[in-house]
Amino acid sequence: MNICRTKQQLKLTIKKAKEQGQTIGFVPTMGYLHDGHASLLRAAKEENDIVVLSIFVNPMQFGPNEDLEKYPRDEERDLAVAASCHTDIVFIPSVEEMYPTKPLTSIKVAGVTERLCGASRPGHFDGVGLVVSKLFHLVEPKHAYFGMKDAQQVAVIEQMVNDLDMNVTIVPCPIVREPDGLALSSRNVYLNANQRTEATVLSQSLSELAQSLKLNEVMTAAQCIELITNNIKQTTGEIDYVELLEYPSLHPIAKGQRLQELPSGQRFIVALAVKYGSTRLIDNALFQVEEVIERV
Amino acid sequence: MNICRTKQQLKLTIKKAKEQGQTIGFVPTMGYLHDGHASLLRAAKEENDIVVLSIFVNPMQFGPNEDLEKYPRDEERDLAVAASCHTDIVFIPSVEEMYPTKPLTSIKVAGVTERLCGASRPGHFDGVGLVVSKLFHLVEPKHAYFGMKDAQQVAVIEQMVNDLDMNVTIVPCPIVREPDGLALSSRNVYLNANQRTEATVLSQSLSELAQSLKLNEVMTAAQCIELITNNIKQTTGEIDYVELLEYPSLHPIAKGQRLQELPSGQRFIVALAVKYGSTRLIDNALFQVEEVIERV
Repeated sequence: MNICRTKQQLKLTIKKAKEQGQTIGFVPTMGYLHDGHASLLRAAKEENDIVVLSIFVNPMQFGPNEDLEKYPRDEERDLAVAASCHTDIVFIPSVEEMYPTKPLTSIKVAGVTERLCGASRPGHFDGVGLVVSKLFHLVEPKHAYFGMKDAQQVAVIEQMVNDLDMNVTIVPCPIVREPDGLALSSRNVYLNANQRTEATVLSQSLSELAQSLKLNEVMTAAQCIELITNNIKQTTGEIDYVELLEYPSLHPIAKGQRLQELPSGQRFIVALAVKYGSTRLIDNALFQVEEVIERV
Repeated sequence: MNICRTKQQLKLTIKKAKEQGQTIGFVPTMGYLHDGHASLLRAAKEENDIVVLSIFVNPMQFGPNEDLEKYPRDEERDLAVAASCHTDIVFIPSVEEMYPTKPLTSIKVAGVTERLCGASRPGHFDGVGLVVSKLFHLVEPKHAYFGMKDAQQVAVIEQMVNDLDMNVTIVPCPIVREPDGLALSSRNVYLNANQRTEATVLSQSLSELAQSLKLNEVMTAAQCIELITNNIKQTTGEIDYVELLEYPSLHPIAKGQRLQELPSGQRFIVALAVKYGSTRLIDNALFQVEEVIERV
């Protein structure tokens, strides 16, 4: 496994791979790898000649009051996970290496960033767009893999890639969950025992909703949101948002809209962000309207 | 010469060239090619295996009251110029091909866009950044060639390429001029006979200033600007700006600053935009402080 700490090293390694005609699968992460990341690395390995993993806690996507400083880091363990997934190249730059001077260039994606985490975390997706764009230029991947836990991130990056004619295919991968349903997240380590138990309400509410919709229970958007909100309110969780939006445009759906009456083929997402203590968790479920409404 | 009108055609052609290990020199233009463009194509041909020319009048970089509709176009002549410069691939997309949907992604470069044309043409450089970024992704050039007549454009694109780690080297090329000094521009065709005569004041003022500075005449920034402004005021030209700025940061230089006292090695630009009738012309001269101040 080739570990590159500078752009120059990485570029030389990528150049060599390209000259040999190798296709590159890319998994950009902030490290503290869990099975969700591992699933991305495995998917990348299956579909490409070589796999590049980047580990970089990107300061540009953290707000001033967010958890940049205490974001969990464990390089040694990350490298072990990477190796166990047969990763070929790991790029671990320092902040100074990625941003030798303050960037004057900013990338904004309108529309898809207006709601959900875009609204709660102003500037977050500008930081994501900037770093992903830099990494794409450095790695020149054929495919890039992103977890659907950050569904809005996937929508933002797909929009950016499309608008900028970037020569990469985005591969969204399913959310990986703990046996009790909690979506894997590097931030889960912050939770104390009680919060960890309570936090299962996120995935359980989404499953309950999926079950109701699959049984063809007629529900409005507002009723879906209410079902989930009421569940979360049984816990100490502080709701940041519970929203039901078209996907991937993330346009709002009217509160009174009966979901069964949406046009066939329409996809929508139910996305939540809830804080347990100072730990903010997100989860979501994607649905598609057919004969019945199926979780996809 | 391979003429591509769709992104798909272009990408296939580029892919083939890359597979053969050919390096690509790229000259992005808005067409109506003159000897300035031809000089870029010739420079590209010398330094790369193949040359890609794009011809696209990019609506995103024109303001609502600018000359998008009447911007001169002559595809047949452009193709003849391209062929005479041994261009390998010409990309001529329609607006619908470049922007099949309204882009939601925007690229802004702060700092270098604040003054000169960035101030007079709000949004102009956002449009330039977007289209150049799209074209770089489609063409994947090793080198991209830009004329120094649009010195601010060169500064903006270099900043963007740097900030986004784009894998391309920007090659600025000298301004090409008519025998009487007028900088070549597609917009020169708009000038009537009298305006055409008067417009030589731009380049002549810059030469006069260069001469004074070379003779080590002590001048402040304000005096340089005054010299040029006074000359232009002898004509019907309406001054948009005459500015003296550091290059490439385009930071202002204090009006009272004696240029001879700037640190050795410091570069600065004197840039002008003047309207003759409805035709807006730009020109500039780049200087470097050494024993004397040399035009570079």
